[in-house]
Formats: sequence, structure tokens, C-alpha cells
Amino acid sequence: MLVNQQTIQFQWGDCDPLGIVYFPRYFEYFDDCTNALFQKAGFPKQELLQKFGIAGIPMVETRASFLMASRFGDTVTVETRISEWGRTSFSVHHRLYRGEELAVEGFEKRVWTVRSGSDPHAIKGEPIPQEVKDKLNG
Amino acid sequence: MLVNQQTIQFQWGDCDPLGIVYFPRYFEYFDDCTNALFQKAGFPKQELLQKFGIAGIPMVETRASFLMASRFGDTVTVETRISEWGRTSFSVHHRLYRGEELAVEGFEKRVWTVRSGSDPHAIKGEPIPQEVKDKLNG
Amino acid sequence: MLVNQQTIQFQWGDCDPLGIVYFPRYFEYFDDCTNALFQKAGFPKQELLQKFGIAGIPMVETRASFLMASRFGDTVTVETRISEWGRTSFSVHHRLYRGEELAVEGFEKRVWTVRSGSDPHAIKGEPIPQEVKDKLNG
Amino acid sequence: MLVNQQTIQFQWGDCDPLGIVYFPRYFEYFDDCTNALFQKAGFPKQELLQKFGIAGIPMVETRASFLMASRFGDTVTVETRISEWGRTSFSVHHRLYRGEELAVEGFEKRVWTVRSGSDPHAIKGEPIPQEVKDKLNG
Repeated sequence: MLVNQQTIQFQWGDCDPLGIVYFPRYFEYFDDCTNALFQKAGFPKQELLQKFGIAGIPMVETRASFLMASRFGDTVTVETRISEWGRTSFSVHHRLYRGEELAVEGFEKRVWTVRSGSDPHAIKGEPIPQEVKDKLNG
Repeated sequence: MLVNQQTIQFQWGDCDPLGIVYFPRYFEYFDDCTNALFQKAGFPKQELLQKFGIAGIPMVETRASFLMASRFGDTVTVETRISEWGRTSFSVHHRLYRGEELAVEGFEKRVWTVRSGSDPHAIKGEPIPQEVKDKLNG
Repeated sequence: MLVNQQTIQFQWGDCDPLGIVYFPRYFEYFDDCTNALFQKAGFPKQELLQKFGIAGIPMVETRASFLMASRFGDTVTVETRISEWGRTSFSVHHRLYRGEELAVEGFEKRVWTVRSGSDPHAIKGEPIPQEVKDKLNG
Repeated sequence: MLVNQQTIQFQWGDCDPLGIVYFPRYFEYFDDCTNALFQKAGFPKQELLQKFGIAGIPMVETRASFLMASRFGDTVTVETRISEWGRTSFSVHHRLYRGEELAVEGFEKRVWTVRSGSDPHAIKGEPIPQEVKDKLNG
């Protein structure tokens, strides 16, 4: 399985009045990490939509567990991989480490979507191309 | 059970290049809604820490399901309530409606924490005061 | 001159580890206030682009002066008006008050732009329609 | 003069429905770059407050000029340096380049502040230590 490793240093604007990283920021970083994983597999998001004629890979469900807080200036590493392939959906798993310790764990379920009919906002799931699965399987 | 209703109009900066609300923004709005629920119960967050001598009510787990996308200018309503009381933890449930339709659902699990020892970063769970439960039960 | 008044309550995620509103947030709120001013004049941003066939009203210059810090839970009022009309550009002035006191002042210079040629990213300034000026002049 | 160079790759969540970087994000990145300049000079922000017993280096004025838009995935470089020393205040200059071209220019005026009296929110300017000026002058 292809794994992306991303190093992040938390910035002042990431932190709340308690001095710890404001939890929605983790979801932004995890989204960046999913994009970085696809880029590593040869599919930068900028090209993904055009190349496969898709509407996007929207999130249908996401969750995170927070085991340890991080602070301004802390440097962490995020390991990202695909954890499950469905027919039209897939799951992404993020593990954020501070040193050796698991600090935050994130999960995303996304759908491979195309436009559906003439309504520009209507989308529907479509089977994920084998090429995409193969590259992300590493 | 006390319920807070919050009306939100999505702003330009909430939306991504696909023109839809960027999903981490929902977690920020849900966090605001939890604070608004506590304020409605008579416990504005600014006073909560001092009044009860607590370190905070940090998130230990959160998740959301995205059923319908929203766009710039859309107005939605979020209904927020406590869905479960543990001894030191509690769960919050958010339902975001666009008109009559459920568009996003969010769940938070938070812990009632106090400082633990002399390390300013060490915190531990403590039983939630009955007064807090009573007010939030409405 | 048409003036828009917007009430804002600062949220937890707006604030930094010093407990004060993180300054880039003011620029987001000012941008929202400019959109609200246009909406009040009868031109919600969602319709502005289509109605006038423009590419947008991008910022070319913005600045702010910070006279007083604000904190989580503070409620402020922003007064927004057009301060100057150029041929293709215009200036917006924001005054953010905490009670009677001016806390932050913001200025924006934006350009009325249309697409230029076939390059989707090329834009150029174009004279602002008199209808737009009239409505925003109140 | 000490110069910090920072490479930034714009992320999905930095961009607005027109597909370009939402302008308040530049102010966040510039703030990060100021912190990185101080860190390069030997004064990471985490230690600055304790080491010099200051309340912070709050922004009193900031502005930016936007010459070229950037998009998701674009990589830019920011050059940051002190452009002026006052007695209690100083100015920071940021130049954001896309390749060889200047895309955004930013200016910050900040004050070296200490607590003033017993009010935790009251601060006042104080002369900037020569050691700080020397290190940032390079």
C-alpha cells in the first residue's frame, strides 16, 4: 500500500486561546495529506478532475480521535494511506505522530463522482478506475 | 433536553474551488454551536473555565456525515443538543438543515477536564457537575 | 452613501494563544461585510458575476489598523461603505466598533474585472456600471 | 539585513470559489513568515515572550498589494526582512514570488509590548532590545 509521509509544523494561527491546535485544523491538514497521497501516486488533484472527467472526490463521512494535544511550533508527521476500496467509494486513514507517539488519528470516506444529467450540482458515484486503485496500492 | 438553534449564512471564504463549503468549516461551526448551547444553558465558555476551575472541555472524538453540499450564500439551521452523559465525558449532536432537509450531521465527544499536578499541560477527566447536567437537560 | 451595519460575535476559532482575535480573521470579516454591502444594494455576489458578466471584483490592495484587541465572545459592529469610485476601481472603508470605540479600521481597493481573451485566467479592468454606483451611493 | 526565505505550496482550503487563493490567507502566511524570520534570528516565538518578558509583538497596521493571483497547487517563495526599526515599533516587509515574478507584497507594523499595570489586557510599547535588532540585522 502506498504511504505518504508529511511533516507539519503547527503555526500560531492554528492554535486556540488554550494554546493548543484548534481541532478543525487537523481536518484541513488531513485533507492536504490526502491530496499529497494522490499526488505521490501520480494524480495531482489539479489534473485528477480533467484526466478522469470526474466532478470530484467529495467527503461523505470523516472522523478523528484526539489522543494528545499539540502546540504552536510543534512538528508532527502524518502517515496517510488508503485503508479500504469500495466500488465507488474509498477510505483514507491518517495517523499523526508527535515523535513516536500517536497524537491524532483521522478517517475519511470519499466517493468517486461524476456529473449527473444537466444540473451542474447533481453528482453520482461511479466505479473507481483500476488504474487509480493500482497506483494507490503502490 | 435543551436544544440550541443557530442560523448560519455561508460566506465566500467558507467555500472551496468547487464552490461548495469546505468540510472542515462545518467542524468550526459545530464548535461554535456547542459554545452557544452552553451559553444558552447559562454557561458562556468565557466563564465556564473560571466558574468550575476546569482546564476545558477538549474534544476526544468527532465525526460528521455529509449528505448534501451547501454553497456560498446558502442559509442553514443547526440544531444542537447533548445526546449522552458519561461520568466525565459527554456527547453533542448537531443536525444542520437546509430548509427541511438534513444536510450535515455532526457528533462530538468531549471530556470535562481539570489540571493534573504541576505540569501546565497535564489534564485529567473529572465528574461533570450535576448543575451543568441539569441546565443542559433543560 | 449606503452604509451596511453588521454585528459580529467573535468565536473561539477566531482567537489566538494570547486570547485575542487573530488579525487575518478581520480581513475575512471585512470581505463578508463588503459582500453584505453589495447584497444590501441589491447585488448579492452570487448574482453579480452573472448579471454583469464580470469575472469578479478582486482585491488589489487592502490594509487595516488595529487600535484595540478583541477577545472570544466580544460583540462588535462593522460599518461598511464605498469611500471612493474610480473608473474601473473602487475603495471600501470598514470601521469596526466595540461599543462606542473604534477598534479596527479596514480599507480595500478592488477592481471591476472582465475576462480578457481566451485565457480563462486573464482578466482586465472595465468601467463600473452607473447602476452599480447609483445603488451603492444610496 | 537577515532575510528569511519560505517556500509555500497553496492548498485546496486556501482557495475560493474562483479557484484563486483567498486573500486573507496571505496575511496568515506572512505572519508565519515573520515568526520564521525571528526563529532564524534565534528567537522562536515560543521563547520570545518568556526570554524578554514581553506581552507580544502585536500588529498595529498591515497591508498587502496583490499583483497576480495564485491557484491551488502553485508553489511560491516568500522573502521576509525587517524594513524599518523604530524605538518601540518595527516594520516587516514580505515579497511573495511566483517564479521570478512578484505576485504579492505585504507590510506589517508591529510593536514590542509589555504588560502595563495589573490589568492583564493593558499593554504598552517598550524599547526594542539592541540584541534583537542586532540579530535581525544579520
